[in-house]
Amino acid sequence: MQNLKYPKGAVLWFTGLSGAGKTTLAQSVSSELILRRYNPYILDGDELRRGLSADLGFTEDDRIEHNRRVAEVAKLMAGAGVIVIVALISPYRRDRSRARNIITEGGHPFFEIFVNTPLAICESRDVKGHYKRARANQITDFTGIHSPYEEPLFPDLAVHPEKESITESTSLILKAIFPSLPPR
Amino acid sequence: MQNLKYPKGAVLWFTGLSGAGKTTLAQSVSSELILRRYNPYILDGDELRRGLSADLGFTEDDRIEHNRRVAEVAKLMAGAGVIVIVALISPYRRDRSRARNIITEGGHPFFEIFVNTPLAICESRDVKGHYKRARANQITDFTGIHSPYEEPLFPDLAVHPEKESITESTSLILKAIFPSLPPR
Repeated sequence: MQNLKYPKGAVLWFTGLSGAGKTTLAQSVSSELILRRYNPYILDGDELRRGLSADLGFTEDDRIEHNRRVAEVAKLMAGAGVIVIVALISPYRRDRSRARNIITEGGHPFFEIFVNTPLAICESRDVKGHYKRARANQITDFTGIHSPYEEPLFPDLAVHPEKESITESTSLILKAIFPSLPPR
Repeated sequence: MQNLKYPKGAVLWFTGLSGAGKTTLAQSVSSELILRRYNPYILDGDELRRGLSADLGFTEDDRIEHNRRVAEVAKLMAGAGVIVIVALISPYRRDRSRARNIITEGGHPFFEIFVNTPLAICESRDVKGHYKRARANQITDFTGIHSPYEEPLFPDLAVHPEKESITESTSLILKAIFPSLPPR
């Protein structure tokens, strides 16, 4: 139930491989938005899996459902005037497109931002050790190893954290979203 | 991921039978909070069933899951500084208690507000025609008719819309929540 007396929100949907830098960039963009007196909130895929989607696994069906729930929550939060920053692998084009539909039908701007770090780099960093465990088959259904990551064909923006500094990627994102952000 | 630079939110959980007046009161409280420069947002059970919980029905298991999701979403929104007003039949004590745990463990104030309109009155009003259809068994699993409503034993507040005006119930709610609401 949208509160029409309050400024509308928006959804920035960061998609990319595990370890691509989605969360780091989300935090950086969030900080910049706070400085501009927006109210950003990061919906982190890993965190949501411990709460809202605690009943789901990593099969294709479960990923689809996880994606759908995150989109529904982002829509609700945008309705409360929040600039929602979703940091979610969201490997399937179909699901990201569905998220866009859910959010734009809710009346909110949606930006698909592709955090385009190549698999080889994500895997060589392997901050959380996920890739190592995936290669050893201690984790199954891992995106990029056992299951596909479908790169966005027409993202609203692509950033390349392996070639750009965090500041540079952040600036690109702000530049891309600002013309369409609701005024404060 | 809580944004610590932004004021914290809270959750007002309105429980009661279908037709008890939860949504009406939620809207009234919401308006008063806007006047006080808070950012309220109504999470309406019926509306969420068309989105986030579109995959769920009305069996006991599905109600439990619906309840859980609403609590998780309310927690996230409260983390974004929203005063979340949940209007949800939420018939089971166990589920409301679970909602309280999810939200307070997230670090947010939680108020269980019992909208205590007797079944006979809800049924005689029957604004949406649900009771009539439930008595004719055209709707099954309807709370109060086929499945129980467990009244709160220790709600933070109970209001009685059949004896009080909307303004009176609203005042009682504001009085109850204000000492604990985060400052603006």
